[in-house]
Amino acid sequence: MTAELISVGTELLLGNIVNTNAAFLSEECARLGLLVYHQCVVGDNEERLLEAIQQSLERSDLVILTGGLGPTKDDLTKETAAKAAGRRLVTDEHVKQQIAAYFKGREEDVKIAENNWKQAEVIEGSIVVDNKNGTAPGLILELPGEKRMILMPGPPNEMKPMFLDSIGPYLAKLQKVCLYSEMVKVCGIGESMAETMILDLIEGQENPTIAPYAKTSEVHFRVTASAESPEAGKKLVDPVVEELKKRFGDNIYTRREEETLEAVVVGLLQRQGKKIAAAESITGGLIAATLINVPGASSVLNESFVTYSNEAKEKRLGVKAATLEAFGAVSEETAREMAEGVCKASGADVGIAVTGIAGPDGGSIEKPVGLVYIGCRADGKTRTEKLLLRGNRQKIRDTVVIRALDFVRRCIL
Amino acid sequence: MTAELISVGTELLLGNIVNTNAAFLSEECARLGLLVYHQCVVGDNEERLLEAIQQSLERSDLVILTGGLGPTKDDLTKETAAKAAGRRLVTDEHVKQQIAAYFKGREEDVKIAENNWKQAEVIEGSIVVDNKNGTAPGLILELPGEKRMILMPGPPNEMKPMFLDSIGPYLAKLQKVCLYSEMVKVCGIGESMAETMILDLIEGQENPTIAPYAKTSEVHFRVTASAESPEAGKKLVDPVVEELKKRFGDNIYTRREEETLEAVVVGLLQRQGKKIAAAESITGGLIAATLINVPGASSVLNESFVTYSNEAKEKRLGVKAATLEAFGAVSEETAREMAEGVCKASGADVGIAVTGIAGPDGGSIEKPVGLVYIGCRADGKTRTEKLLLRGNRQKIRDTVVIRALDFVRRCIL
Repeated sequence: MTAELISVGTELLLGNIVNTNAAFLSEECARLGLLVYHQCVVGDNEERLLEAIQQSLERSDLVILTGGLGPTKDDLTKETAAKAAGRRLVTDEHVKQQIAAYFKGREEDVKIAENNWKQAEVIEGSIVVDNKNGTAPGLILELPGEKRMILMPGPPNEMKPMFLDSIGPYLAKLQKVCLYSEMVKVCGIGESMAETMILDLIEGQENPTIAPYAKTSEVHFRVTASAESPEAGKKLVDPVVEELKKRFGDNIYTRREEETLEAVVVGLLQRQGKKIAAAESITGGLIAATLINVPGASSVLNESFVTYSNEAKEKRLGVKAATLEAFGAVSEETAREMAEGVCKASGADVGIAVTGIAGPDGGSIEKPVGLVYIGCRADGKTRTEKLLLRGNRQKIRDTVVIRALDFVRRCIL
Repeated sequence: MTAELISVGTELLLGNIVNTNAAFLSEECARLGLLVYHQCVVGDNEERLLEAIQQSLERSDLVILTGGLGPTKDDLTKETAAKAAGRRLVTDEHVKQQIAAYFKGREEDVKIAENNWKQAEVIEGSIVVDNKNGTAPGLILELPGEKRMILMPGPPNEMKPMFLDSIGPYLAKLQKVCLYSEMVKVCGIGESMAETMILDLIEGQENPTIAPYAKTSEVHFRVTASAESPEAGKKLVDPVVEELKKRFGDNIYTRREEETLEAVVVGLLQRQGKKIAAAESITGGLIAATLINVPGASSVLNESFVTYSNEAKEKRLGVKAATLEAFGAVSEETAREMAEGVCKASGADVGIAVTGIAGPDGGSIEKPVGLVYIGCRADGKTRTEKLLLRGNRQKIRDTVVIRALDFVRRCIL
């Protein structure tokens, strides 16, 4: 089955936002065995959108539209899709109730703007998909000639859960060939290096295939086999995964599709009955915030510290003034004392500390922007790691979070 | 002049990478006053690429292609563009020298793979643009009927400098009309409500136009006028911006394109010579991390606290056990004591505290998921705010960060 994506939104055409929806949906479609040959972006303009929908419906079996379902006048994806399908819009009582329920009891001062009722209109004869994170429902249209159109809201935090919960499973049922895939998530190795390490596997691949996905400081490899049953697929995938395990060793942090690095760390701590606390300088709270992404993180984290100034490092963590004086705040010695100090101060079993220079200013020849020290205290031992990272302030800080969590993982494995 | 973008690459269709090139080029085109109505992505497939180029040339004045200029057999953008233009490929001696120079003196003895000479071939009659960061040159084709095609390499670190150094200036010379735009960033009002408040302005718009961009808990309005000069553009834009100021009042936190809410808060604190510290429960460090997005935030933030457990709230912030007992951790009273406590503990002038239920578990009828209390201590006064937010764990936490920063902004304005 061929699919194509139409992202609707003037903000994409103006470059105000990056089209992460297209990347997410393309990856999900690949996973479902859907062949995506075209993606396009059009603005909130009826004529051009209609033209794009018609062209897509002509050449592909499935057209996935995102965006333009909002409550404003600009939003006309639903109206235009209805036109393309030759159907009318009708008010859906269930959606109307959902919208009312969504607003009920929420912030006292939010009244349901009249506009929002527009979102209760759906295309006649479509399958309505609930939006758990917003007011615009998703719509599935089954059209003559085995063609289908799917409309989803544009905000990624509404679209992604809707796809994963409802649209993906709907599409999976339509596929005849069974695609079996496993994920191997690797961190601590750069993308080029990781791919070079398995170039021979990638070059000779037919079935299964290995698809690399580069993330911040991580590479995820999806191994996918096309087979008649999940069991037959698994038999094809297993030896490839075994080979990846041999090559990447403990750089593999999980083989579960949905498991994040922070969930692995929280899980390890939970099983070991340990508490963690962070002492963050360069990341300013991002490590703690990332751990708390995991529901139930309160069982492993009581408190955490952002010690940005030298004074805070001394006062909260007991870093010695002499250490700061002799080696500086960005040094292996300071990272070590921060990790040890945060365990003492909080009573946590595991302490993770980071200190570094995120830029754009503050670098020098000896200590350039991107220099970072990580310290981790666990099982009575303190280990440190030095990083020299590239990129802007945001990229450096995001990378430090991943590298620090990975360092914790290795220290407590 | 209308422009459209064609991004070439199977890795985009598989979702292996996010199309940041399209966002970059769209923004640059908007800045140059080029009207971009279409972006598309096609794979390294001659038939589909040729079709895409022909369609784009038909409906737009300028077609910008990125990707598919590499040395491998897969790369066929140049060949296909030549076909669409009815021209041949010819070897360019200057490019050949550039490629030799690029490899000379590189690591060890990298030999120039035969493949790389393919990159010395250019489309006959095109303007060749040097690539300072790689081996594939850019090409500008001036075609009959005032049409133009521009080919650039796909890697962003080659494409972006090439655009900024050469392609952008080339295009700027072609433009007659000037686009002048100003930004008005609003927070604390939902998207629907914000648009309802200015519906009459949006409905009647022609020149200038008002484009709304919804962000997490924010709406940004870009007011754009098309004129003969920036000065003439500003004259058209000014009265609209004045009207927006009247309607949104202090919900407008900035009118600078590149200024974030956290930058506004850090700037206010810097000008007032004040320090801030956060006491975060539900956000787990995100507020501090967001403030530290701003380079130079160290002048206003020495330290910050993640007090996730009740024990930490008592020990670090001096929240009374009786308060926690009587009202619970998620209560106005606790938020108030947290905000006051963090000022005392850290010596900061401004204390921001958040406590709430992010879910998915932990909610009850009296205290549902999404219930959040914010406390802010400033100028010897403590104010609190109650929020009832919707969405998943991530969305609730992201919203709390924005609302808390906005609350600080209002308290210290």
